[in-house]
Amino acid sequence: MTDLIDGRTRLYGLFAHPAEHSLSPLMHNLSFQRRQINAVYLAFDLTSDFSGAIQSIRELNMGGVNLSMPFKKQVIPYLDELTPTAKIVGAVNTVIHRQGRLIGANTDGTGFFENLRAHHYVIKNKTVTILGAGGAGLSIIAAGASEGLRMIHVFKRHNATFPKVEARLRDLARFYQTPIRLYAYDDRTNLQRAVRASDFLINTTHIGMGNDRQSMPLTGEEMKLLLPTTVVCDVIYEPRKTRLLLAAEASGCETVNGLGMLIYQGAQSFKLWTHEEMPVDAVRAAIEKESENKNGGIGS
Amino acid sequence: MTDLIDGRTRLYGLFAHPAEHSLSPLMHNLSFQRRQINAVYLAFDLTSDFSGAIQSIRELNMGGVNLSMPFKKQVIPYLDELTPTAKIVGAVNTVIHRQGRLIGANTDGTGFFENLRAHHYVIKNKTVTILGAGGAGLSIIAAGASEGLRMIHVFKRHNATFPKVEARLRDLARFYQTPIRLYAYDDRTNLQRAVRASDFLINTTHIGMGNDRQSMPLTGEEMKLLLPTTVVCDVIYEPRKTRLLLAAEASGCETVNGLGMLIYQGAQSFKLWTHEEMPVDAVRAAIEKESENKNGGIGS
Repeated sequence: MTDLIDGRTRLYGLFAHPAEHSLSPLMHNLSFQRRQINAVYLAFDLTSDFSGAIQSIRELNMGGVNLSMPFKKQVIPYLDELTPTAKIVGAVNTVIHRQGRLIGANTDGTGFFENLRAHHYVIKNKTVTILGAGGAGLSIIAAGASEGLRMIHVFKRHNATFPKVEARLRDLARFYQTPIRLYAYDDRTNLQRAVRASDFLINTTHIGMGNDRQSMPLTGEEMKLLLPTTVVCDVIYEPRKTRLLLAAEASGCETVNGLGMLIYQGAQSFKLWTHEEMPVDAVRAAIEKESENKNGGIGS
Repeated sequence: MTDLIDGRTRLYGLFAHPAEHSLSPLMHNLSFQRRQINAVYLAFDLTSDFSGAIQSIRELNMGGVNLSMPFKKQVIPYLDELTPTAKIVGAVNTVIHRQGRLIGANTDGTGFFENLRAHHYVIKNKTVTILGAGGAGLSIIAAGASEGLRMIHVFKRHNATFPKVEARLRDLARFYQTPIRLYAYDDRTNLQRAVRASDFLINTTHIGMGNDRQSMPLTGEEMKLLLPTTVVCDVIYEPRKTRLLLAAEASGCETVNGLGMLIYQGAQSFKLWTHEEMPVDAVRAAIEKESENKNGGIGS
């Protein structure tokens, strides 16, 4: 591919910290190559002043960047424009540099539902329970509301950010005309009721990954309430099968891990930048191959 | 090669205007690939504020950049350190980003002599005539002085910059303890004398390229004075054979075009950045192939 890099090759990138383990360079470079777009995508591990990095998008005439936390929120004052979803979620994962202007978008939530659609699930008029209301959670709630869900139940720890999230969800519900109910995570009565009534149960917390690999966002008792018709989703993709997903499968539920969301949020960034479709099947295959090389097997 | 780009891939680049026709991305990307160095090199066409672009080296933790005119001079106030040659030439073609510091070097002149050495020419104690004392000329004069040439004759238009160049050459001669004589370009007596006495005659002016393709930096009369033992060099590489080089060959002289200088200045940048040798033969072959693809043949 460096055979193809020439004096016109355009730079895209990821601003993150840490950045080095990101799968985004693999996804986007493969897609640029397949779509014969003269561009490369690099990960930049930002340790210094963030505003300067944003300025680099203009200075080096980059095509755009992706952002990870905490930059998803920090970037907002530096942008010329926000998409409605980015504005209402208050977070940007994609910056588009178009004719000197920096436009912020959020493709996390829309990517999540795009992946469900790719799995042939119907979204409209469904009832959804969402565990967690951090960055990923809010994006999914906003996208879900815009997709015409019948009802969104949100469970979140009753901490200092609770009132702020409550206000934001009220705005979201009004903007998209979709009922959203926020409950404290320890409101087990409503949690059990919501789990039982949901077509989709979506974990957006970190419970189940990293040091929390052995944990589950629901108790065994709550898991027993799951109907086999409920599709259980996790935004986590390392491991591919969290304990939540394994338990859900044992209960006869279909499950969806976070890899598809990762790919489709990237695909939507790619489309915003290039107006081309990401070759998602090739990207998925490359990511799985990469994981095998690294781990000696998926899920290890 | 994008198969090899991952979250650790480091960015290098060229800051120039225009930039899109540069051969540097080809040279350095091929070299990164061959030396298995996880890096890419892009050309950035700088149309906006230059200081911001320099700041991007730090912000994005780039490994380094090359510069073309006018940035070779403009960059100096932004650097933490200059090599002695860069300082005395007053121009930087290579910035090294090392442990948070930006170091400016100039590899144009040393690249020129490195190429002559690769052609098995001896430099030490030789007498040289240099036509032009712009950026390339000054770099070659400085490098030649540091190489232990016996005598350097420099011919330059007698315009507004003449006294400034005269002072700079005086500093150079003192610093390197090498005799350097500056003459006005229209001082034909001394020009004829110098041509006749030189082991190397080096054109560093633009006469012979672009719109000046049909011109020569020496008259037909002066060319007749050339001894067949004089090696005639041109920093121009488009066309590969300038009218000067064609006429010199007709007089029985050996000639050296600017392509080797281009490659070796890049090789020295590459070494400063990576501590590795550029695979110069592979780079030369790739450049020639590229030219053939573009022009349907070298020199056309």
